This record gives sequence, structure tokens and C-alpha cells, in this order.
Amino acid sequence: MSNTKTPWLRTVSLPPPSLQNNIADAERLVSTLKAVLQTNDAIYIDLKVLKKLPDLLRKSDFKIQCILFKNRRQWSVLDIRAANDLRPVAGLAVDLGTSRVMLRLLNLADGQILAESGFDNPQLTVGPDILTRIHFTETGGGLAELNNLIIGGLNHAIEDLCRSNRIEPEDIHALAVAGNTAMTHLFLGLNPRWMIREPYIPVVNKPEILKAAELGLQVNPAAGIFIFPNIGSYFGGDLIAGILYAGLCTASDTSILVDVGTNAEVVVGNESWLIACAGAAGPALEGGVTRMGMMAQPGVIDKIAINPHTREFDLHTIEDKPPGGICGSGVIDLAAQLFLAGMIDIRGKLVPVNCGKRLREIEGLKHLVVVPAAQSATGFDLTVSQADLDSLIRSKAAMYTILETITMSVGILLKELTIFYVAGTFGAFIDPRSAITIGMLPDLPLDCYKPLGNSSLGGATLALTSAESLAQIDRIRNRITYLELNVNQEFMNRFSAAKFIPHTDMSLFPSVSVRPQDK
Amino acid sequence: MSNTKTPWLRTVSLPPPSLQNNIADAERLVSTLKAVLQTNDAIYIDLKVLKKLPDLLRKSDFKIQCILFKNRRQWSVLDIRAANDLRPVAGLAVDLGTSRVMLRLLNLADGQILAESGFDNPQLTVGPDILTRIHFTETGGGLAELNNLIIGGLNHAIEDLCRSNRIEPEDIHALAVAGNTAMTHLFLGLNPRWMIREPYIPVVNKPEILKAAELGLQVNPAAGIFIFPNIGSYFGGDLIAGILYAGLCTASDTSILVDVGTNAEVVVGNESWLIACAGAAGPALEGGVTRMGMMAQPGVIDKIAINPHTREFDLHTIEDKPPGGICGSGVIDLAAQLFLAGMIDIRGKLVPVNCGKRLREIEGLKHLVVVPAAQSATGFDLTVSQADLDSLIRSKAAMYTILETITMSVGILLKELTIFYVAGTFGAFIDPRSAITIGMLPDLPLDCYKPLGNSSLGGATLALTSAESLAQIDRIRNRITYLELNVNQEFMNRFSAAKFIPHTDMSLFPSVSVRPQDK
Repeated sequence: MSNTKTPWLRTVSLPPPSLQNNIADAERLVSTLKAVLQTNDAIYIDLKVLKKLPDLLRKSDFKIQCILFKNRRQWSVLDIRAANDLRPVAGLAVDLGTSRVMLRLLNLADGQILAESGFDNPQLTVGPDILTRIHFTETGGGLAELNNLIIGGLNHAIEDLCRSNRIEPEDIHALAVAGNTAMTHLFLGLNPRWMIREPYIPVVNKPEILKAAELGLQVNPAAGIFIFPNIGSYFGGDLIAGILYAGLCTASDTSILVDVGTNAEVVVGNESWLIACAGAAGPALEGGVTRMGMMAQPGVIDKIAINPHTREFDLHTIEDKPPGGICGSGVIDLAAQLFLAGMIDIRGKLVPVNCGKRLREIEGLKHLVVVPAAQSATGFDLTVSQADLDSLIRSKAAMYTILETITMSVGILLKELTIFYVAGTFGAFIDPRSAITIGMLPDLPLDCYKPLGNSSLGGATLALTSAESLAQIDRIRNRITYLELNVNQEFMNRFSAAKFIPHTDMSLFPSVSVRPQDK
Repeated sequence: MSNTKTPWLRTVSLPPPSLQNNIADAERLVSTLKAVLQTNDAIYIDLKVLKKLPDLLRKSDFKIQCILFKNRRQWSVLDIRAANDLRPVAGLAVDLGTSRVMLRLLNLADGQILAESGFDNPQLTVGPDILTRIHFTETGGGLAELNNLIIGGLNHAIEDLCRSNRIEPEDIHALAVAGNTAMTHLFLGLNPRWMIREPYIPVVNKPEILKAAELGLQVNPAAGIFIFPNIGSYFGGDLIAGILYAGLCTASDTSILVDVGTNAEVVVGNESWLIACAGAAGPALEGGVTRMGMMAQPGVIDKIAINPHTREFDLHTIEDKPPGGICGSGVIDLAAQLFLAGMIDIRGKLVPVNCGKRLREIEGLKHLVVVPAAQSATGFDLTVSQADLDSLIRSKAAMYTILETITMSVGILLKELTIFYVAGTFGAFIDPRSAITIGMLPDLPLDCYKPLGNSSLGGATLALTSAESLAQIDRIRNRITYLELNVNQEFMNRFSAAKFIPHTDMSLFPSVSVRPQDK
């Protein structure tokens, strides 16, 4: 990320051979590199590189550039070239999302970001969620089709990214790929069917470094492909990348990382320990937390203020376009503001007397008009129903319960957390004040909340720009304790208590002032 | 070689996964294999194997066969299959000779030899010797052509060998290849041109384990290809294989290994040290030792006895066919018998008075008729000229001088050697008594001389049938001290002394009785 030297591009001068020093070219290069890298690790030179080596050394006066990469056990010399060769040496960080895939092109020499792009996961044509796709792999040719879709999508995006940045795909020498366990399997062409059946077994936890050519990726065929390891079927490499990016594992204070994407995933820890939980915590979360991560796009309402006295709405839309919908952060703002204005009660139920003419009854269900037809981009009323609000209450209660459960499991209180990282789109747009108001997030000082952005892409970037980060990844993976979220009576009791705004136990939310009439 | 279990085929039972033991399939296999192999080395599983793994495990009740191989740093799972799969698991030992390539098909499960075959190196069409071939690589496409010739020749021979032994090329899962440094380079497609120019640098000393597919070998594409390391341009993997096969490096007594093929190579040592020298020791050896390794074939004279009283010749030819030529061992026998019969003197010069009517003068040069035209297969006199005999004297003197030089360099006497291994065709056919008589080999008790046969093929066989042998190879390579044979005044003095039959210093050859008139 920063403009520091990465370990991947090295210009080395080899001592020229003589009758007294007549080891082979390959061993001469290895011994020079070991000294330069100050390592005793093995250094592997590919046959294709060996084929170039003798003539290049003698044409270049034994001074050459080496493009290197490292796996767990050894360094590899991916390519060699003349010391004065100025072609770029690029790397590509990839966030392999279920819905969207993000690419970041990097200069491997200095770690600088050259460009970014993203595309909708082409597997969406097969199914929006991972479960549908895994079932699809059980049809004839389904796995190959899903693999082709993602590899093809990546190749297309890589071609575009290279063209607009005037580099050749051949100049990309390393990739770091972070995805959930299922996406990683589909990317590798590995059968994911046993991941969704008890006892939920992936094919591989720690994939080896592969070569681009093995995967059909159209970059340099010898490019090294680092794939983030997973902990199990429900805890993937994307979250390991997030932990790396947040630096959770190197801080002495205990902090927390929450990633709300297709799944809700939570990690708590510090330099000594890490505990994580993830996935659907039983029926309580179904259609809950997972529904709020709607894509923000122009015209979508992302901020709402309601004057508690006049109950007038002040909306903000992305790019100030006429309002056409509401995104996750907008829904949370809305609920917080409705609550503070007395328009919903502590159970999240619409209060007719306070909603006034914004209240509609449609097919027997109460709706609140957020934007009347005349002002909306669609020409129809933009509404939220009581069912939407009930769903939000379940979501926020589930989230709070998960946070409470994981911290209690290690004997700390939520208020003891020093930094609260919120990853993903959710983290980028959410107003922590609103999330606290509805009791979704704990009542920490606002400056504890840090949006992380795309932490998976951030982690993948680190893997490509710092050997130290790359080495940390397995340490993170091996140190995490994975907490199974059992939806038992205790969990359900906590969940029930969290289904109020902000919570049954008001003392947990001292900063939330509740209108007297709602107490 | 013996019918013992090799480490390459293992049937393992994995503990079935459960909610309590939910590591991925790959990591489950690795941890089981580590226990079975009693190793802490890394175990690598290829992507193609990972693709098969989950379904195979569940179809086979978690009991499978693994086909394994090992390189310097890690084990590899080359393939997996059902525990009851009875297809053969074969390996191929290859002696990559400059003139002839020998193959030995092995059962990798028990190390048994299934079959052998050989073919003339197809690179002979480019040139009979390595030097011509290396110069040919400097022409456009020359390296690729030589590489294609040897790979094509191997594929053809492998196809034949498989067909006649009713196995599929896909059933060959590992190769061990021993060749001189130049042949190894041509086999790998590596540029050998710097090997023949001072300071004589090969591209690589210790090639990595490669995959068959990388080299275009038509066996199982994932087959592991082990290539014997070399010490330098003039000391190749074939000789390392020979040292392994002779067990030179594991014996407490000091023994010697002599390999006379295209080059003359000598190794002396024991479990504590190894010293070697090889190649053309300057002009003294040119056309000398290297000329004697003629191919033995039917009709070629391989044994000669001359009655010292009647001077009648008693010839033996291979397969008792009419005599058509004379091979290396025959020439040595001839010289020894001529000397004992007084027909050549201690300088190797024909003694006209004792040669009688067998002596001819052709173009001013003395010739001895070994087989008169009437008895020869060709219808012409079969003769040896004084020039041939002079050349033999230089050869034998060079050989003895090399043996003397290498042993003196480590402060031992030739007579202190306990075993004298003679490798190759030369070793198989030579009569040590005759070689001692002419002073080519030292005057050791005859039972010290052990013909080794094709020691290069023997070593390659060991590499495929014993993990212990495989591990020894690098130890041998790293322990050898390579002695440069400087043709200095001291060498030339020794060489001059050795140009007599058996030697100027008769006390070195107490077993050779010299006719009084020749003293």
C-alpha cells in the first residue's frame, strides 16, 4: 500500500564464474539470492526460467532482475530479465465476492496501487447465493460451468484493466485471492458439495501457491497465485484477509471486526488470541442481517433525519438523485429517526398517532410512506412496511446477540472493546450513531467505530506487498478459535432481550435518550 | 531391486470427518500420511489430485491408495485411487547414455524389475559425441531438435516397453534419469554451450523434480521426474548414480570405481570421503582410453589366448560367429598375450622376429594379422597396426596414471584399495588379468575386481525403489571432492613411466612375469 520496497523484485549481481568458482548458473543465482534475501529458505527456479538463465546472465554481465514470490516453504524465481528492463511488474489483489468481484492492480516493485475495477460475479446467472450454486455443481458439468464463469469473468476484467492501464497481462506476475470458502472452491474447480452437508467439510483448508496457467488465468503463465486459507466451510479466506487488514492480530488492545456481507462474520481478539463466529445463527438470522447489505447506487436514500418536533423528513440520496429506494444504512437511519421521533415504539411497531398521514394500510399491513409518489424517482410511494421493520428488529437483535455471545464467551464486556472495525459496504455507509440508537451496535464512544472498506481486498493487497503480511496469514489462520453459535435457550433469551429498541436493559445504552412517553 | 516394500505406494485409512473433527479433506489426508510415513516433511497435494479427493474418499469409505514421491524438501501425492484398484504402479529407471539409452521398467510397489529395453541415442544422427551436439545447439533450433530427438526416442521406447508388458504409459508414475551433464541438459532442453567454454559452467547442478508433462514425456502427466545431480560439466549424474549403485559412500573400507565410457571417470572413497576425477586428462588421453569402449556384438573377438611357446592364437568371438572385428576387452587381451608371447616388447612395439609371418608392412606401418582373410567374416585380414598398439599403450598409461594420481592425492597406495569396481561394458567384458598384465589396472588380487554392469541404470533403479537411496544422492554429490587433473610435469613423469608394459617400476606388478629376454 505504501510506497515501500516489496521483496518481489530484486536486481542482483552474481559473481562471474571462474575456474575456482565454477558452480552452475542456477546454483550461483540461488546463492546470491539467499544472501540478498537473508534467508535460508529453499529457492526454487522453474524450468522455463532455467532455459533463459545462461544467455541472459552472459548478455547482462551477470546482473539481472528477479521476480520472486514466496509460499509457505520456499521462494520461487517466477521470472528473470535484464537489469535495465523497464517493463512493469504488476500484481493483482482479488476480492472474490459471491455477488461482486473486486480487482486491484498493484505495482509489485513498490506496492503502489495502479488501478481498481470490479464486476458482478458472473455466477449470479446460476444463482444469487452460494447454496444454489453448490447444488448446481451436483448437476452434470455444473462445477466446470461455475469455474469457467468465474475464471472467464476474471480474464475479461483483467484484460480491460490491463488495456486501460497500458500494461500487458503477461506483466502480471502474482495474484492474491481472498474469497469465502465456497467461492475459493469454485475458483479452483474443487467440488464444494460436502461443505453444505454435515459435518461440512471443504476439500482444502490451505491451498498451495498455484501457477496462473494451472487455473486458466490469462496473466503471465508462471504467475504465482496465492489463495487465502479458510478455517472451514463457513469461515473463509475473505475474513482471514480482513483480520490481516485490520491488524487485529498484532494489536495489544482487544478489538472487534464485523463483516456483514452475504453472511455476518465477527472476530474478536488481539496479538495473543483470536475468536471468531460466522454464518447464519439459526432461524433468528434468516432474512435478517443478511438482507440489509443492499447495494448503494445513485438515487438510493442513504441518510435520513426526522425532526422530532415537526416530524418532517430530511432525506439524502446518493449523488443527490431523486429517491428511488433505500439502502441498508438508510434503513438503519430511518429506524433510529422514527424511534427518536416516537413514530415507532420500543418494539419497532409503527405508532399511528405519531405517523399521521404518512401511515397507509395496504392489504391489511401497516406501511409508512418515506417518499410520496410525487417526489419519488419511480412515480410510486416509497414505503417501508411493518414487516420490513420487524425484519430489521430481528436483524439488529441477532447482530447484537452475536456480539454479546462472542465477547461473553471470552469473558469480556462489549464496552471493553477499544476499536470496532466495520468492514464492507455496510461499514462504509452505516452511521454508527443510528446503529447504536436502535441497539444494533453496542454503545461505545463513536470514535471507536472504524469503517474498514473492502477489508478482503485490503488483505489481499497486503499479501502482495509485504512478505511479513504474507507470513502472518497462516499464523492468523492457525490461531483463530472458531465459536459455533448454538442457538440454545441462553442465546434465545439474549435475542429476545435485544428485540427492543435499543434493548430491554436500557443501562447498556446510556447514550440513547428515550422519549418519556415511550418508556 | 529386491522384493521389499517401497515407500511410494501407500494404502491409508483416514479417520472419517465429524463435527468435532472437521478439517478439510486435504489436511486430513496430509495428517494421516505424516503419521504413516513418520515424517514431519511437508506433503504437497497437486490441484488435479484435490479435484478427485472428496468424492473418492466418500466412495471408498475413506480408505485410499496414494502414489507418492519425494523431492529434497517435500513429499508429493502424485495420484490417489481406490484401495482396491489393482492397476500397476510402475516406475522407469533411465540411463541416458550419449550412445545408448537404457530403460528399466519397475514395479513401484515392490521394486521388482518388470522389463528392460534400450535404444541407440537418436541424437547420434546429429553427432556421435557430445561436443558435436553442443556445437549443434548453437545453430538455430539446434537445441530444440536435440531435445525433441531424445524425448521422442524415449516416448517411442516407453510405448514399446509398455505395450510388450501390457501396461499403460499412464501407469508410469515416476522416472529416475541418470546421464552425463550434457545429456541431462539436452534432455531438459537447457542450453549447454557454456559447459564447453572456460570456465565450463552448466546451467544447473541439481535439477528439481519435474513433472512428465513439463518435459513432454508420454507417461502419466503428473509423474515425478527425478534427475540425478551433477558436479560440473565433466562429472555428471550418471557417475553419481554409479557411486550410489556401488555403495562406495556407505562402506568403511576404501574402494574405487572406474567407469570407462565416452569419458574415463574415477571415484575413490568410503563412508567418510569421496574424491573423483573425470574426463580427458589433456592430450595424453585423446583417442586413448575413450577409444576402447567399442560395442561388443556377435562376431567380435572378445578373448584371445596366445600359446607362448607355439605362438598359436586361440580366439573367442561373441556368439562364436566368424571373427569380424575386435572390441576393447579383446584388444587388451591381445596386447597382454602378445607381450607374454614376446611378440611385443615392453614399449608395446611389435618384435618382428617373434611375430613371424603374422607381420605385415602396410603403407610403411607394421601390422599384425590377428585373423587371416581366409578365416575372417569380412574376407579381409583382420589386423592391428603399430599405431593401434601405440594408442593402446597411451590409453593404458593414461588410465594407470589417473589411478595413481587420484590415490596419491589422498595419500593412499593403489594396493590399499579393497574393492575395484569396473562399470559399464568395459567392466563387463574386460579380463582383469590381462589389464593387469599390460599395466592398465593395478596389480591387486583378482577377486578385488568387481564388474558393476550398467551402474548408472543400477543407481537410477535404486533412486526409484528406496527412499534411503534417494536421500543419499545429494549427500554423495555434496561430499565429493572433485580433483582437477592438471597435466603438469609430475603427471607427465608418471605417464611416461606408465608407458611401459607393465610399468617402468616392475615392483608395482609382482604378479606379472616378464620373459627374461624382454627385461
